[in-house]
Amino acid sequence: MQTIDTTTALVDRYFAAWNTTDAARRTRLISEAWTDDGTYLDPVMSGSGHSGIEAMIAGFQAQFPGLQFHRNAAIDAHNDHLRFSWVLVAPDGPVIAAGTDVTVLSSGNRLRSVTGFFDQAPVLP
Amino acid sequence: MQTIDTTTALVDRYFAAWNTTDAARRTRLISEAWTDDGTYLDPVMSGSGHSGIEAMIAGFQAQFPGLQFHRNAAIDAHNDHLRFSWVLVAPDGPVIAAGTDVTVLSSGNRLRSVTGFFDQAPVLP
Repeated sequence: MQTIDTTTALVDRYFAAWNTTDAARRTRLISEAWTDDGTYLDPVMSGSGHSGIEAMIAGFQAQFPGLQFHRNAAIDAHNDHLRFSWVLVAPDGPVIAAGTDVTVLSSGNRLRSVTGFFDQAPVLP
Repeated sequence: MQTIDTTTALVDRYFAAWNTTDAARRTRLISEAWTDDGTYLDPVMSGSGHSGIEAMIAGFQAQFPGLQFHRNAAIDAHNDHLRFSWVLVAPDGPVIAAGTDVTVLSSGNRLRSVTGFFDQAPVLP
């Protein structure tokens, strides 16, 4: 069971993976945040394993350059599960989408699965 | 992929399982709603398999007689995942707790796992 500090560090790393465009650094963040067979799934994107998640995030960044994910509420944690909400913001400030991610953690405090739900459907620029 | 009608029927059956005190009917609802190895996990309760879930719900009903769960928002569905919110109400009306459940469905449209999160921590009578 991870401490809250470690959980926060994990979630910080998760969002950094989405927001980092330097490929080498992004690859390192993904491998630190997810287990080897970790997954991501939301209504419009999915990725499985480090290389699948890398391809998904790189594709997202290429399609929507400059957008950044920011956690906007406390992390809700129980057992090996986390829940946290986020906004996706454009470089000039507007909120593009909002959502909530639910994750299952490994015993080593990495992400086994992330399931994303939209609270505010994307309004793409 | 299940239709929305079927998803709604499944979630109705799930809440009926929590709210039904007739043991035979509750057992049937649980076996209709969950897969044989289905699970439930929230910050204070857990159950695994039909008999484990039956014991969990029977124990909850014995400890807090008369409380009822009601879904209070639309079902958010994508891929094999659902998210829906609920309130737990006392017989005389007050809201005891509120939360959100996230589920993974089987190909046969039953609950493989339910993970519950509290949006309003329980204020027990």
